[in-house]
Amino acid sequence: MSASSLGFVTAQSQHFDAALPLRSGARLRDFDIVYETYGELNAERSNAVLVCHALNASHHVAGCYEGQDKSEGWWDNLIGPGKPLDTDRFFVIGVNNLGSCFGSTGPMHANPETPGRVYGADFPVVTVEDWVDAQALLLARLGISQLAAVLGGSLGGMQALDWSLRYPKMLRHCIAIATAPNLSAQNIAFNEVARRAIITDPDFHGGHFYEHGVVPKRGLRVARMIGHITYLSDDVMEQKFGRKMREAELGYSTQDIEFQIESYLRYQGDKFSEYFDANTYLLITRALDYFDPARVFGGDLSRTFASASCKFLLASFSTDWRFAPARSREIVKALLDNRLDVSYAEIDAPHGHDAFLLDDPRYHGLLRAYFQRIAGEFQ
Amino acid sequence: MSASSLGFVTAQSQHFDAALPLRSGARLRDFDIVYETYGELNAERSNAVLVCHALNASHHVAGCYEGQDKSEGWWDNLIGPGKPLDTDRFFVIGVNNLGSCFGSTGPMHANPETPGRVYGADFPVVTVEDWVDAQALLLARLGISQLAAVLGGSLGGMQALDWSLRYPKMLRHCIAIATAPNLSAQNIAFNEVARRAIITDPDFHGGHFYEHGVVPKRGLRVARMIGHITYLSDDVMEQKFGRKMREAELGYSTQDIEFQIESYLRYQGDKFSEYFDANTYLLITRALDYFDPARVFGGDLSRTFASASCKFLLASFSTDWRFAPARSREIVKALLDNRLDVSYAEIDAPHGHDAFLLDDPRYHGLLRAYFQRIAGEFQ
Repeated sequence: MSASSLGFVTAQSQHFDAALPLRSGARLRDFDIVYETYGELNAERSNAVLVCHALNASHHVAGCYEGQDKSEGWWDNLIGPGKPLDTDRFFVIGVNNLGSCFGSTGPMHANPETPGRVYGADFPVVTVEDWVDAQALLLARLGISQLAAVLGGSLGGMQALDWSLRYPKMLRHCIAIATAPNLSAQNIAFNEVARRAIITDPDFHGGHFYEHGVVPKRGLRVARMIGHITYLSDDVMEQKFGRKMREAELGYSTQDIEFQIESYLRYQGDKFSEYFDANTYLLITRALDYFDPARVFGGDLSRTFASASCKFLLASFSTDWRFAPARSREIVKALLDNRLDVSYAEIDAPHGHDAFLLDDPRYHGLLRAYFQRIAGEFQ
Repeated sequence: MSASSLGFVTAQSQHFDAALPLRSGARLRDFDIVYETYGELNAERSNAVLVCHALNASHHVAGCYEGQDKSEGWWDNLIGPGKPLDTDRFFVIGVNNLGSCFGSTGPMHANPETPGRVYGADFPVVTVEDWVDAQALLLARLGISQLAAVLGGSLGGMQALDWSLRYPKMLRHCIAIATAPNLSAQNIAFNEVARRAIITDPDFHGGHFYEHGVVPKRGLRVARMIGHITYLSDDVMEQKFGRKMREAELGYSTQDIEFQIESYLRYQGDKFSEYFDANTYLLITRALDYFDPARVFGGDLSRTFASASCKFLLASFSTDWRFAPARSREIVKALLDNRLDVSYAEIDAPHGHDAFLLDDPRYHGLLRAYFQRIAGEFQ
């Protein structure tokens, strides 16, 4: 562990007895939310930052678990003592969303409606709005009535935007990185192919594979491989792999690995299929598809953000073709139309969508400066 | 049929008894090549144009089959009497490549090494070079010693380029549309995901599914869905589908169709899985991966084209992100480095890679003018 490390962290859990009504009309009878915190809540309870996760992440945002190697949080490069989101000044909360396979109530948990069985495919469809509602209940439980900021990238950025729209008084800053006001047809198309790969895997068993003692690993592998292609830029793939072969001579095989990019993708797919839940993958990609706050305003994003009142920081990355800078600019325009306080940076980075998770000096410098501004407001 | 139609056309076949040595070191003991011709070969035998097909096409390039609805050739908008490639002036040959599932010897044919069984996964890996060698044998059989032009788009364009490199005296013009000097890491990555979807389908049976009476349709569907996303531009997908829903109200389901883009992709995948052979898909995507004529020149494309002597027309489409204009420009630069006669057009078209198959007036106007120039050379 480095000098600026958080040291060992532990996950916590809160149980909620009251039913949670969902956008779909269904409800969760009761549920658990798993979360982690880093740093100390100040006496005024004004320094809390909520971090929302993206597709395959969790509440384990920073630090390491005791006794476990390689358990570093997924945004550990950003969050810790002296880091851009400085836990010596901020109280940071990482929260796991409903439907996840990492602790909060999800498809792998017991379904109270069918004693002795887990939810599986019967877990209700959850939306970004449902997640934010559950996060708001957690904050109430923790005694936090207003957040200094909500921070998220990609799908996490959509949650941050939803906070600004539906709980406008509960946050002072919304920080949405590499995100979009909704998915494009191409985004939905990639999600749909990944879902079909999972659902048509014979080991999926209509989403009730747990009771068959199998996992639809073939589908999960293909889904993850597709995902990985869209997370990386064409350029960075070319620099990292190009046409590099695994062996010096061509093997002339359709099934064996010839190119290093194939080896990389198969490895990523295999790894993912060992730990990720297939039903969670379906739920989270669907939440992405459904997110579209402008829908009830006839697609008018400017009218959509009329309810927002917090300050905004948006950032996008030049080579991100999944959520391209143009998508962030749509949001910036809508915010400016409402005369809101908005900062926006388009960062020239080669890594595609993945850049939001990486330690790029311009990107981290931007976040460091913005969090210093926020800290200045309560110190 | 329109006035400018070819009317009914018929497929022909030639059998070759001599073994064909392949790049892999394997050989095909004997083989059939299926082809079609349109127009008349002139007395000087100087007006022949060979059309090479791309991933999922065949020798059926133009015209219709008698008694069959919807049997129009895949490039019928381009080829026929009075069309840009005018069959009143040119003798056009459409050829089906080895390894295909549309007639020429392929995985669905009897394997002479294993009597009573089809090749299946034992069909040897074929390359663009092997296809061109077989095409050259067909032309010799037809008594054509020099082609007016070789024409192809995408993978067909790679074959046209290979003709110019290895049979430089056998063609006067190489017309390569929406192609590339080799696949990028991202291109290979998409092919690899599609192949994994097919190979890991339990109905694939290691490529010997025929004898099990099944077809790996799940894998083929996913492969085709991935392909379709990469054929279309982000823009045209947005215009055509955007976020249009199938029903007025959200259904909140991870498995049912919500968005029209999902419906479109599933339909394309289903249709494809009904007629396309899984082993052919693996072979053709691998031929794409392997094509890299500059490999033996240490990646130096200018040195690669030192062997070429014909004239060239290249065209690319602004929104093609599969084989982007920059890839065509690499070829153009290499041709100019060799002081070859090259025309190049970058066509502003919204349809992505698919544009090479569509009837865009600027694109077809370009081809019409170029073929008029070629016709002027022999008339």
